[in-house]
Amino acid sequence: MALVNENYLKLQGSYLFAEIAHRVQKFKAENPEAEVISLGIGDVTLPLPQVSIEAMHKAVDEMANKETFRGYGPEQGYAFLREKIRDVIYKSRGVDIEADEIFVSDGAKSDCGNIQEIFGVDNTIAITDPVYPVYLDTNIMAGRTGLVKEDGTFEGVVYMPCTAENNFTPELPKQHVDMIYLCSPNNPTGTTLSRDELAKWVKYAKENKSIILYDAAYAYYITEDDVPRTIYEIEGAKEVAIEFRSFSKTAGFTGTRCGYIVLPKAVKGYTKDGKEQALNPLWNRRHTTKFNGTPYIIQRGAEAVLTEEGQKQVKEMVGYYMENAKIIREGLASLGLTVFGGVNSPYVWLKVPAGMTSWDFFDKLLHEANIVGTPGSGFGPSGENYFRLTAFGSRENTLKAVERIKTQLKL
Amino acid sequence: MALVNENYLKLQGSYLFAEIAHRVQKFKAENPEAEVISLGIGDVTLPLPQVSIEAMHKAVDEMANKETFRGYGPEQGYAFLREKIRDVIYKSRGVDIEADEIFVSDGAKSDCGNIQEIFGVDNTIAITDPVYPVYLDTNIMAGRTGLVKEDGTFEGVVYMPCTAENNFTPELPKQHVDMIYLCSPNNPTGTTLSRDELAKWVKYAKENKSIILYDAAYAYYITEDDVPRTIYEIEGAKEVAIEFRSFSKTAGFTGTRCGYIVLPKAVKGYTKDGKEQALNPLWNRRHTTKFNGTPYIIQRGAEAVLTEEGQKQVKEMVGYYMENAKIIREGLASLGLTVFGGVNSPYVWLKVPAGMTSWDFFDKLLHEANIVGTPGSGFGPSGENYFRLTAFGSRENTLKAVERIKTQLKL
Repeated sequence: MALVNENYLKLQGSYLFAEIAHRVQKFKAENPEAEVISLGIGDVTLPLPQVSIEAMHKAVDEMANKETFRGYGPEQGYAFLREKIRDVIYKSRGVDIEADEIFVSDGAKSDCGNIQEIFGVDNTIAITDPVYPVYLDTNIMAGRTGLVKEDGTFEGVVYMPCTAENNFTPELPKQHVDMIYLCSPNNPTGTTLSRDELAKWVKYAKENKSIILYDAAYAYYITEDDVPRTIYEIEGAKEVAIEFRSFSKTAGFTGTRCGYIVLPKAVKGYTKDGKEQALNPLWNRRHTTKFNGTPYIIQRGAEAVLTEEGQKQVKEMVGYYMENAKIIREGLASLGLTVFGGVNSPYVWLKVPAGMTSWDFFDKLLHEANIVGTPGSGFGPSGENYFRLTAFGSRENTLKAVERIKTQLKL
Repeated sequence: MALVNENYLKLQGSYLFAEIAHRVQKFKAENPEAEVISLGIGDVTLPLPQVSIEAMHKAVDEMANKETFRGYGPEQGYAFLREKIRDVIYKSRGVDIEADEIFVSDGAKSDCGNIQEIFGVDNTIAITDPVYPVYLDTNIMAGRTGLVKEDGTFEGVVYMPCTAENNFTPELPKQHVDMIYLCSPNNPTGTTLSRDELAKWVKYAKENKSIILYDAAYAYYITEDDVPRTIYEIEGAKEVAIEFRSFSKTAGFTGTRCGYIVLPKAVKGYTKDGKEQALNPLWNRRHTTKFNGTPYIIQRGAEAVLTEEGQKQVKEMVGYYMENAKIIREGLASLGLTVFGGVNSPYVWLKVPAGMTSWDFFDKLLHEANIVGTPGSGFGPSGENYFRLTAFGSRENTLKAVERIKTQLKL
């Protein structure tokens, strides 16, 4: 009898975006004349940078000729891309990462989901609350949690609330944890962790022999000088942290698919009898056994992003979105709403008016201003009473949305 | 203390291709004038079909314009591709598969490796011997095996020897097994399973509530009419079989990366207390949580393969390789060597001359004819005394290689 992985049966339905779609659909059916604007989903809208377009055309042509055709490439990614990442993303920040500590993939979602495989099932994980759901769901699937509780949290998981009260900075857990998921700039709160906060986590990880799983997918949206772009700017992080990066939000690759993991050779896990085991070779084994490399064409598109001209183009693109973020942030603040994020992140996280739940505010925004956002409670219990708006729309829609919020929302 | 997944420590080094590379390098250093031809690695050499090149150029251009740009697509693949697969691969063979039973991915290696995640760790797996290593390695990683034994096999795994003695058809295991990996046309033996043989396995799976994991990555290489192209041609298979397919060998996509899983909704696994659980929704959950879709550009390239003109082009491509296979097969047979495969597969599997091991023959072929092949023992103990040659080289090299074998090999 072929047994199934019963951990999957513990998973909760991906209720959030389905419920949003359902409510929007109903509203549209009842209000066919309404022009609904979505500031809900975290997907980019600007086309790919021209450098990537050109590089991919060239790569497609190479695939058309026997002399330049590429079959299987290295599973870890071509040297041309790994070396560019090493130089442009890390060396430029004074961080020494070797090319063979970088593993190119099809995106940070896959990497964040797959990384837990190289860890023991008995490890305790810590996640922030609210949180990007993939960290938790993939650990549920692997059996690193118990069952769901009435409040929607899972047994055996350490939740670290991040709210306005603690300035969205997770506190060190009172109990021992082995794997710590941190995301900065944060999805969904749009806030960042300071150098001192990160140093606190690196210290904890070293003392507790824990691993930090650091999601820096939004690093390019940081505008303030003193916010670390990579966790490896923190002394000692190369011994305890794995970093996830992506071209998705950096360069509009959400449908083009390229990301990477940085796993320094000094990062160690442990066997049950306490022996050190470097994680880089374990991930290398996982990556080469279960993955066959990112398409050559796509890797060339990603490489182009890391040229001087490419960096110029993506900075313009990010600048466009960040101007949207500013418009949203300042527009909401001018109404007396309390807003967070939007300075080093494309996400604006707002406190919903007193007495309302996240879903109440969702309905209010949809009905009064015909704007779709994302209820904070969908990202975890501590997201209740918050709401996420994204800066990835067009300028025109962003301006229109803010104008409507200002003029039509009854606050 | 962050524990590692100690199952990884049970894995054996990927000795085979490293050892081949080492011996070839040594030979070349000692014989700098020798012109070594490789018929060793299963990678294609012809450029992509022209239809894919055109489709991908068009898709790249779409990504350059705001109006046609694509961000996140459906994780399971775009409808345009899933429906084409349904019609061209399945409906054309009289097999009814729904589009939502097809999950587009970045390749069959990922799918073969990832599929085991939705199964319980207590399942017993059965694999053929010799075998494509990914089936076994990913189950070792998941903890579905014991330790390696002295003969290189793993405790707790049911091996099904496939040799000339049983016509390369695995026998039904005497003990109960839950997950059965079958590959036809087979890598490495190049042989296929007949309709009757497959029917036997479907019957076994139904009676034993087992699941067949059917790798049909080489289906396009079948030339004989009566060999099934898909396991779903067998009555009842839609209740017990998951099929893996790929554009890699079909259309030269080894570096372009696109494959798919077919998981019919009628396929059921079981909870420990004996309740039926459809596998399609479990895989859907896995696929949408840990994967973010195959690049849009690549999916357009794959779609083009499934047009009428695309099918014509890939049939020419496959025909070219199969003519190579014929040249190798007939050339070796003319020397009195015993050869298998190469009729419905790009792999020729030969019995090495009496008294030699696979590695002895490797050295002999390299030194006397300067040809690189793959020792059968590298694919499992029952591959000992066999040797794999591939038809993926150029016609010129294939002809030259066979000529050298005929004139220089001392048999």
